Amino acid sequence: MEEALFEADQAALIGEVPIGAVIVHDGEIVGRGHNLREHGNDATLHAEVRAIEEACARLKSWRLSDCQLYVTIEPCLMCSGAIINARIPQVFYGARDPKAGAVDSLYEVLGDDRLNHTVTVYEGLMAKDAGERMVAFFKAARKRQKARKKARQAAKRAAAD
Amino acid sequence: MEEALFEADQAALIGEVPIGAVIVHDGEIVGRGHNLREHGNDATLHAEVRAIEEACARLKSWRLSDCQLYVTIEPCLMCSGAIINARIPQVFYGARDPKAGAVDSLYEVLGDDRLNHTVTVYEGLMAKDAGERMVAFFKAARKRQKARKKARQAAKRAAAD
Repeated sequence: MEEALFEADQAALIGEVPIGAVIVHDGEIVGRGHNLREHGNDATLHAEVRAIEEACARLKSWRLSDCQLYVTIEPCLMCSGAIINARIPQVFYGARDPKAGAVDSLYEVLGDDRLNHTVTVYEGLMAKDAGERMVAFFKAARKRQKARKKARQAAKRAAAD
Repeated sequence: MEEALFEADQAALIGEVPIGAVIVHDGEIVGRGHNLREHGNDATLHAEVRAIEEACARLKSWRLSDCQLYVTIEPCLMCSGAIINARIPQVFYGARDPKAGAVDSLYEVLGDDRLNHTVTVYEGLMAKDAGERMVAFFKAARKRQKARKKARQAAKRAAAD
């Protein structure tokens, strides 16, 4: 999970929502990724999807049946679906995402036995570290937004004077 | 939808599950894709995800807010999540997928107003054409499987003689 947190930090450094993921196979990291939606201009570029794509390429298989996925924040619907489609048997995640989490918060899709694959989930691994990164990121983002708004208003006033 | 069916046929031609998708922006196709899981060795290579990736690259934005997605079969959890993440407002699909569909069959995630985006869904567009392709594909796949099993048994018998 420390490696997933490292990936989250790589996202934060470039202004992306700080979420990171790694995939482990036989004790070795075979896929890693961090959120890259803004820089990549692509809605599918979440940490988990990127890590899955890399692991599939590395292992030359769409089936990641002997892998574990570690991710700092509870996966969304897209990423949970990708985890099921890739047949990953175990997922470790840090903090919950009450707004979009599909593992425990809004849905519990990884345990849905109507689907052709279910996943064992371990919640709360280094959750504090993962959650603090999100809180700090969104606090800074709100601050930047406020500063931008203030600057726009000041420019408007100056133009009106 | 005819273009999505054309994509489904491209998948079938190479032995992939025949599902196709296109994304339309201002009346023009900006993204297209067909299922490529086996050939691409990647669990995320569903028709919708590939079409979304192409449309995002073409429009240089992760937001596909002015686009419509056409897909031959009801999207799964991963693809429904990708549709939400890409903020696509309208989805037209052909036939239902009772085993993995996340739009009407197992879940109704595109209409879930707890999420930050909801989607207007139009079901049943050329459903017969889309469904028939799936039925024919899986019938042929079962036939191939049976033939392989028979050949294996014959080889075993020959070796035992």
